[in-house]
Amino acid sequence: MNLKKAPELITTESVNGGDVPPSLASLSGRVILLECFQMLCPGCVSHALPQARRADLAFRKQGLVVLGLHSVFEHHEAQGHRAALAAFMHENRITFPVGIDAPATSGIIPQTMTRYGMQGTPTSILIDAGGHVRLQRFGSITDLELGAAIGSLLNEAGQPGASTKP
Amino acid sequence: MNLKKAPELITTESVNGGDVPPSLASLSGRVILLECFQMLCPGCVSHALPQARRADLAFRKQGLVVLGLHSVFEHHEAQGHRAALAAFMHENRITFPVGIDAPATSGIIPQTMTRYGMQGTPTSILIDAGGHVRLQRFGSITDLELGAAIGSLLNEAGQPGASTKP
Amino acid sequence: MNLKKAPELITTESVNGGDVPPSLASLSGRVILLECFQMLCPGCVSHALPQARRADLAFRKQGLVVLGLHSVFEHHEAQGHRAALAAFMHENRITFPVGIDAPATSGIIPQTMTRYGMQGTPTSILIDAGGHVRLQRFGSITDLELGAAIGSLLNEAGQPGASTKP
Amino acid sequence: MNLKKAPELITTESVNGGDVPPSLASLSGRVILLECFQMLCPGCVSHALPQARRADLAFRKQGLVVLGLHSVFEHHEAQGHRAALAAFMHENRITFPVGIDAPATSGIIPQTMTRYGMQGTPTSILIDAGGHVRLQRFGSITDLELGAAIGSLLNEAGQPGASTKP
Repeated sequence: MNLKKAPELITTESVNGGDVPPSLASLSGRVILLECFQMLCPGCVSHALPQARRADLAFRKQGLVVLGLHSVFEHHEAQGHRAALAAFMHENRITFPVGIDAPATSGIIPQTMTRYGMQGTPTSILIDAGGHVRLQRFGSITDLELGAAIGSLLNEAGQPGASTKP
Repeated sequence: MNLKKAPELITTESVNGGDVPPSLASLSGRVILLECFQMLCPGCVSHALPQARRADLAFRKQGLVVLGLHSVFEHHEAQGHRAALAAFMHENRITFPVGIDAPATSGIIPQTMTRYGMQGTPTSILIDAGGHVRLQRFGSITDLELGAAIGSLLNEAGQPGASTKP
Repeated sequence: MNLKKAPELITTESVNGGDVPPSLASLSGRVILLECFQMLCPGCVSHALPQARRADLAFRKQGLVVLGLHSVFEHHEAQGHRAALAAFMHENRITFPVGIDAPATSGIIPQTMTRYGMQGTPTSILIDAGGHVRLQRFGSITDLELGAAIGSLLNEAGQPGASTKP
Repeated sequence: MNLKKAPELITTESVNGGDVPPSLASLSGRVILLECFQMLCPGCVSHALPQARRADLAFRKQGLVVLGLHSVFEHHEAQGHRAALAAFMHENRITFPVGIDAPATSGIIPQTMTRYGMQGTPTSILIDAGGHVRLQRFGSITDLELGAAIGSLLNEAGQPGASTKP
């Protein structure tokens, strides 16, 4: 059994996250849902981000941490600025921390996106309490399947959902 | 920690289930989703039964067993016959076994429904691998929450979802 | 310009319709949405009947008449009785009149269904104020398209929607 | 009967509209759906713009003209530039012309938005073939109701929907 260690996030700044950008190192021992998006990606706006909000509301008490990652690889002029992202998050009522993926040093794919080998946005990633990538899905994932993966990892970490806790 | 043992099902006959009505005793060691419904209950037709079908398709490989229980407590003339239920299941493409809850010996609530203290239909019940009731929900439950409860119980039983299996 | 005159309904009895079964003759001068269904047809329960209810609520004031037609051509034992239909309509909160299509004298297709050449259920039919069939759709029709057809016929009949009335 | 004449659009430039910004004067005799939005307005992205796209696809052949109006009254730094709007429209597959509402000469509400007395975004406006405002709705409108209003105006203009055309 060989699990891939989740690479650390490389972000330039963050929104909603306090002074320090979100990092996996600071969340050791926690189950994490990392939602990678672009604000001009319709599938992100209509499906992935509302789903991440629902997961945040449903499972925060059981210990899930939801993080966003804004990985801009197109339309930089329209979505590449912190002010635009902050306005977008306000209008879409996103209250979990979102890091801004560091621009590529060469090419167009931001650095964290490259590290994870993501194919595009949205990409949903689940990281277990031991810091390993346990699910990475490009495109959409159903609520039923995402819920099951979260429930499984929370149980494994000794934080089963309240609804099934003995 | 005191968990309630799931009472055995009391059914008169079944559809899709072979010669023998579904019983919890025969499913020892398995995680079970028991969906209690009436065929003339709109919330069952539009929400609970399609959700149970999705759960069956998504988690059968990981070991989940989905069972239906037809607990008729009203409109007996319209939905109280096996032929009507069989036609309903065919049209709604329900392929998991459905037991017909045994009529009350006194009063109107069928016997299994009474044993579980169900308030009405639909009611979704999750039974863990040890045979205990771990979730019982009257009305609707979201896919995200049902998924998490299933994922948690499958993990506990050593059958984590394929998507997060190391 | 040759429009097909809508054949009269042949029904044995009705639910919600008072003592007299619904007839086109008694509704001369009115725009009619005729929704043909079976109670065990999932597409009817999940799409066509809720849509007919919405149309009834939205356009009754502008003069639209919504009628149901229960045209049973399969599973007679389960859905062929008035009591079953009445229970179904109660549970699904259908308040517009529903006639029971008269059984075939030969073959399995009920008489009104045969007269209209319907292919199955659900079938949505729009009849103009002059008594002509102006739309007949087997399967689903979108709200946008059904709304436009209703709005067009109401305008033609001098009963434009309140929202656009000068 | 006094109908309000639809005020002319005041726009600085347009996307998808060729060299000339969309104007009501150039569309005399046509039924128009004018969809007023902001790209960072979630109700616009998830409901109003997809609905306008559906209306464009469903009724273009019957003569409906769909126009967008980008009326920015907040988050100018994020959505106030033509490049951002063009990227947004590309990602959301909006192919009808969109004019950019002229900034206020005083205050924050753009000029066309002020002329129509709009309360915010999204606002859906229907203009009849004679150039009069026949429906103006802030917030959401159902497909059924919007469809009926469009069908009524197209019929009035002698362009009834193909589905009900004699």
